[in-house]
Amino acid sequence: MASKTLNIAIIGAGVVGSSFLKQLASVKSQISYNLILLSTSRKALISKDYKPLSLQSWESDLAKTTEAPLSLDELLQFLKKSPEPVIFVDNTSNDSIANFYPSLLQNGISIATPNKKAFSSGLSLWNEIFNGNESSGLVYHEATVGAGLPIIGPLNDIVNTGDKVQKIEGIFSGSLSFILNTFSSSNQKFSDIVKKAKELGYTEPDPRDDLNGLDVARKVTILARIAGFKVESPTSFPVNSLIPKPLESVSSGEEYLQKLPDFDHEMEQLKQEAAADNKVLRFVGKVDFPNNLVSVGIEKYDVAHPFASLKGSDNVVSFQTDRYPNPLIVQGAGAGADVTAAGVLADVFKIAQRL
Amino acid sequence: MASKTLNIAIIGAGVVGSSFLKQLASVKSQISYNLILLSTSRKALISKDYKPLSLQSWESDLAKTTEAPLSLDELLQFLKKSPEPVIFVDNTSNDSIANFYPSLLQNGISIATPNKKAFSSGLSLWNEIFNGNESSGLVYHEATVGAGLPIIGPLNDIVNTGDKVQKIEGIFSGSLSFILNTFSSSNQKFSDIVKKAKELGYTEPDPRDDLNGLDVARKVTILARIAGFKVESPTSFPVNSLIPKPLESVSSGEEYLQKLPDFDHEMEQLKQEAAADNKVLRFVGKVDFPNNLVSVGIEKYDVAHPFASLKGSDNVVSFQTDRYPNPLIVQGAGAGADVTAAGVLADVFKIAQRL
Ligand SMILES: NC(=O)c1ccc[n+]([C@@H]2O[C@H](COP(=O)([O-])OP(=O)(O)OC[C@H]3O[C@@H](n4cnc5c(N)ncnc54)[C@H](OP(=O)(O)O)[C@@H]3O)[C@@H](O)[C@H]2O)c1
Ligand SMILES: NC(=O)c1ccc[n+]([C@@H]2O[C@H](COP(=O)([O-])OP(=O)(O)OC[C@H]3O[C@@H](n4cnc5c(N)ncnc54)[C@H](OP(=O)(O)O)[C@@H]3O)[C@@H](O)[C@H]2O)c1
Repeated sequence: MASKTLNIAIIGAGVVGSSFLKQLASVKSQISYNLILLSTSRKALISKDYKPLSLQSWESDLAKTTEAPLSLDELLQFLKKSPEPVIFVDNTSNDSIANFYPSLLQNGISIATPNKKAFSSGLSLWNEIFNGNESSGLVYHEATVGAGLPIIGPLNDIVNTGDKVQKIEGIFSGSLSFILNTFSSSNQKFSDIVKKAKELGYTEPDPRDDLNGLDVARKVTILARIAGFKVESPTSFPVNSLIPKPLESVSSGEEYLQKLPDFDHEMEQLKQEAAADNKVLRFVGKVDFPNNLVSVGIEKYDVAHPFASLKGSDNVVSFQTDRYPNPLIVQGAGAGADVTAAGVLADVFKIAQRL
Repeated sequence: MASKTLNIAIIGAGVVGSSFLKQLASVKSQISYNLILLSTSRKALISKDYKPLSLQSWESDLAKTTEAPLSLDELLQFLKKSPEPVIFVDNTSNDSIANFYPSLLQNGISIATPNKKAFSSGLSLWNEIFNGNESSGLVYHEATVGAGLPIIGPLNDIVNTGDKVQKIEGIFSGSLSFILNTFSSSNQKFSDIVKKAKELGYTEPDPRDDLNGLDVARKVTILARIAGFKVESPTSFPVNSLIPKPLESVSSGEEYLQKLPDFDHEMEQLKQEAAADNKVLRFVGKVDFPNNLVSVGIEKYDVAHPFASLKGSDNVVSFQTDRYPNPLIVQGAGAGADVTAAGVLADVFKIAQRL
């Protein structure tokens, strides 16, 4: 018999959301996880009497329903009246929902999410989220950096046990990992590899949304803040975009891809310069305490460095601290429906154990 | 103001124990951690009225006291009467204390420990420890494998979220990591490196206690069991000792070190064979589900494999699962007072958050 019942409200049923629902349906646990709300931007399933919705037929139920999503305020009112503690799972990348976290937390609602927005926008939102009191909800966001890889949790442990971070360095973009790993280990042109990455579904529809480095800057912002660096926003430090200046303003991803070959010689030259020093190019995010610096851009790594042997679209992070002068390194898949959903689900479990 | 008070009882004030006490003394937290007992095998500080003992002067207090340690039964009676929930921290490598965990847990006392014994002895003790009910104490043991590296926690997350482990492979001994990393990257004789490792304090007083592979076998037993492999004991699967047969029975570590050069040619030959295939030697533990196999011994790894670029005395573990066909890898220092104590302290925090 279940010893505890928790109510789960899920926003987003896309790539991560649907995998999360599938995993949640197979959970074997002494705790009962009851789905009381599932919403996309167009439709919602809402259990007005807080009885569990089906985790088996949610997809067809959602297809059939004509119910509109609640506004954020209506949502809060609904969740506040839940007879059991609520875990809110935000599987969107929406900004408005992220801005609403403080209201949820202040009302005792806990949050598990892979959505980076709340943690990588203005510093004031971060402070509001993490400066709660005893009756505030809990917030876990392991999957905001490196998907299901153990990164946020271990970094919090490092900081909370009194260690001091010196340097964080990592490859936080699956698409840029794939592009640069392939570029350094093959003779293919940079532009061809970007095209291939898009075809394989590794990039956003407009690859510039990956190559501009902003997504990496958001992840670095999150890690820097946990480590104690008061980063104002993801645009408050240097981000060296991989998009050639003249292609930043072209109107479409197609046009960018079409004109990218004109700039292949620039990347080729960088690659040759690195190779002359027995190095390879990687797109990394860095937090450097001794130099008081946060940055994102291309760096060169010795072929014997752990970042040089990275494969496929894997992510990697290296924490150098007072206790780990030789860094603690974590690597593996940093994107993908199942590993991301598993990261969120593990967070739900951790919240549930504390409620 | 502190929102919660927890009582801490610590057994062992050696390498890990004294670092743990130092870290505990600097904790800044909303939770108050009160030391109510500190014991070695010879002496004890016991707060009979459960008022906090000093975390500043414990060393001189312990030196001064004439109080004898409690028996395990007396200890249990003392902890059961604590007015606040108790976290028991076992910083020994003692077997009797490990065997006593079920009694502590059944009485609602939680445990954080780097002591492998309870988790790597007979399977029945493991089952007793993990088959508790709702009112049982919690048990966390991250530091039993890889010290403070995130290994046990992430593996539990993998299993609990419904992923299936296919293969676990790792270098779990700091001393054997140092010995084989140095052996593969230098021209020194194997016996000279073992001597140097002992001089640097990387090995046990008798280096055979590392080279026999039993400590690695205990760690592999723990990981295998979490992953769902019912390992009966650390001697129930093949462990290929690095000690030449004729030296297993010599009476002292000194005699072993003195005679070891006679066997250098054997290791040298293994090394050359590996080098001919562009490989290096590593001492690894393995859990292999498809082949239904747990094993410990020397293996060869391609120079491009992450295990081949390991440095110093670092540990590394690789988890290959259904969701991570390209494995999730964690590496870094897997021994040392401060990282081990930090692993135990992070566990104490996790228990405290749940109590
Ligand atoms: N995919 C990965 O590998 C990965 C890895 C790490 C982190 N993440 C993060 O995980 C989150 C989800 O990613 P995804 O790949 O699953 O995205 P996705 O496939 O685009 O799905 C997004 C879902 O959110 C819903 N949604 C968006 N705005 C909403 C709103 N205002 N109200 C209600 N529902 C809304 C969408 O509903 P409609 O269909 O109605 O628009 C859709 O169901 C993102 O924050 C992403 O950065 C993803
Ligand atoms: N050192 C590391 O790098 C490391 C890394 C990972 C895990 N660990 C694990 O951490 C644990 C502690 O290691 P350590 O290096 O700190 O060992 P240590 O320096 O030998 O200290 C052991 C402590 O335990 C006490 N002790 C032993 N048996 C006892 C008993 N029956 N009752 C009360 N106290 C007892 C000892 O007291 P006396 O001085 O009175 O004998 C001593 O204070 C071990 O399980 C070890 O495997 C250590």
